[in-house]
Amino acid sequence: MVERFYVGVDLGGTNIKVGICDQEGILRHKFEGPTYSEHGAEAVLARISQYVRETVERAQLQWEQVAGVGAGIAGFLNANEGVVIFSPNLVWHNVPVKQILEEHLGVPVKIDNDANVAALGEAWSGAGRGISNLVCFTLGTGVGGGIIINGEIYQGFSGFAGELGHIKVVDADEAIQCGCGQYGCVESVSSATGIVHMAKQAVQAGRQTTLCTLAEITAKDVVDAAKSGDETAMQIVERAATSLGKALSITAVILNPQRFVIGGGVVKAGEILLEPVRASFAKLTPEASVRGVDIVPATLGNDAGIIGAAGLLLRI
Amino acid sequence: MVERFYVGVDLGGTNIKVGICDQEGILRHKFEGPTYSEHGAEAVLARISQYVRETVERAQLQWEQVAGVGAGIAGFLNANEGVVIFSPNLVWHNVPVKQILEEHLGVPVKIDNDANVAALGEAWSGAGRGISNLVCFTLGTGVGGGIIINGEIYQGFSGFAGELGHIKVVDADEAIQCGCGQYGCVESVSSATGIVHMAKQAVQAGRQTTLCTLAEITAKDVVDAAKSGDETAMQIVERAATSLGKALSITAVILNPQRFVIGGGVVKAGEILLEPVRASFAKLTPEASVRGVDIVPATLGNDAGIIGAAGLLLRI
Repeated sequence: MVERFYVGVDLGGTNIKVGICDQEGILRHKFEGPTYSEHGAEAVLARISQYVRETVERAQLQWEQVAGVGAGIAGFLNANEGVVIFSPNLVWHNVPVKQILEEHLGVPVKIDNDANVAALGEAWSGAGRGISNLVCFTLGTGVGGGIIINGEIYQGFSGFAGELGHIKVVDADEAIQCGCGQYGCVESVSSATGIVHMAKQAVQAGRQTTLCTLAEITAKDVVDAAKSGDETAMQIVERAATSLGKALSITAVILNPQRFVIGGGVVKAGEILLEPVRASFAKLTPEASVRGVDIVPATLGNDAGIIGAAGLLLRI
Repeated sequence: MVERFYVGVDLGGTNIKVGICDQEGILRHKFEGPTYSEHGAEAVLARISQYVRETVERAQLQWEQVAGVGAGIAGFLNANEGVVIFSPNLVWHNVPVKQILEEHLGVPVKIDNDANVAALGEAWSGAGRGISNLVCFTLGTGVGGGIIINGEIYQGFSGFAGELGHIKVVDADEAIQCGCGQYGCVESVSSATGIVHMAKQAVQAGRQTTLCTLAEITAKDVVDAAKSGDETAMQIVERAATSLGKALSITAVILNPQRFVIGGGVVKAGEILLEPVRASFAKLTPEASVRGVDIVPATLGNDAGIIGAAGLLLRI
């Protein structure tokens, strides 16, 4: 029998990444090209189709070996119908991505949001390999999330399950407003944006820190300063970590997953972040919901999106 | 074809309730007898078997019509293996309930904890009928919970999914210790115990309230006083309700269920409790996770346990 392959697309506002995975979720071939989102949805979808065909060709595979194409897209989606309802960074409204790509490519297409496919990627062949029930938190500009139950993305009633960045973890008197309009969301503290916000506040408040010498502060600057022993930066990283630990704790009493996978740019901080996350989780959670549960960093990095997108095709 | 029936057992420390349900989850026959838990597990399980056989007989059914027996039991269970690991009110340790009852009765037996089976009962033929994804909060002495996904109880990795009473909702400076040892759990405020605790605190603090004339305060007293316009009691009910609303809000961003069902003795308070629960939920939750989601009281009352226990047999 001819080996079958799964194509994953990570559609960003600037670049389109295409990957080809084998049946074990191992990424065999990769391609990246510009999105040119200003050309509009039709043109972007035609470009995706072209990139997919070219990637398959370069990989010296037969088109008949392609089991299907999955795409991860940031925004509000109807994953069941394959429609992007609204994507802020692409400026798309009600685009029937599945239908259009299936017309172009003649193979089954599935779509899901970027956080969900990253979780599925880690579950399939990354830090969650072999674990059927896991929850993934992605710490980037915001805090995204994905819930994997029995090896599949859990969508909930209307597709909004796993909006983990909006778990409320911060006490009212310390809460800052989140992008969603609410107060106290974990995203407002544990994302790169939250870390930078806390750092700027500390500098403005005249706290002693090496960060005050920087013209522009990034989350990486804060982590680096913390690693160098800067007390203020250490407290900020600690606060981001303990807030995330509280979000994991709340998720654990509700869902009791076997593993938490922490991904996204912020997790590159490593153990200086993860160690207090684990400590805060263990301290705040009833013992029965801690036992046997682990908290590990994601292992696929930026490839989680294309691998997980390819993984959408596993159950069709 | 002969009609098949499902037997549900609600095993309490004082009484054993047995019910016979038809295939639609309608309770056809009911029986209740003493547990005599002081006689030990073997004797209690023999008594359950006797009650089940007698109830089937009184209902004038043939034993062959019994598809199986389900039991709801308060405590820590391994539902997959059918073992009660620890039940505080029965004082049971590692009792293989499924195995023993199957030997006695010769039909398939399943067990689960009381909060989970109550949720399944409401999903099968109560307030959640026809809804495949719902979350049930039971407000009694504690706050129990059950998560129904695709019509089935969601157990999680080690059987501790749905421990919803331990969602943290109270700010640190106002938090009281929960029975689980943690601080700020919704159970510490929104359970009958929590309401009584807040009432006693108010009386001790010399707050003006009709509750100070009572020798012993119950949650019903507090609700009745609130309904009569007692300001202090109204604030207590409001606090129990807004805390529950926050727990629903957190659950909604994680799980996005279609419906929340609120059961247990405290919900008899009715709209004086539910209206501020809905208001707090809507206020605290991103709009996408509110749309189309409703919050309704349980409808099966004390029968939810036996009906849901019977419902455990639906998927065998």
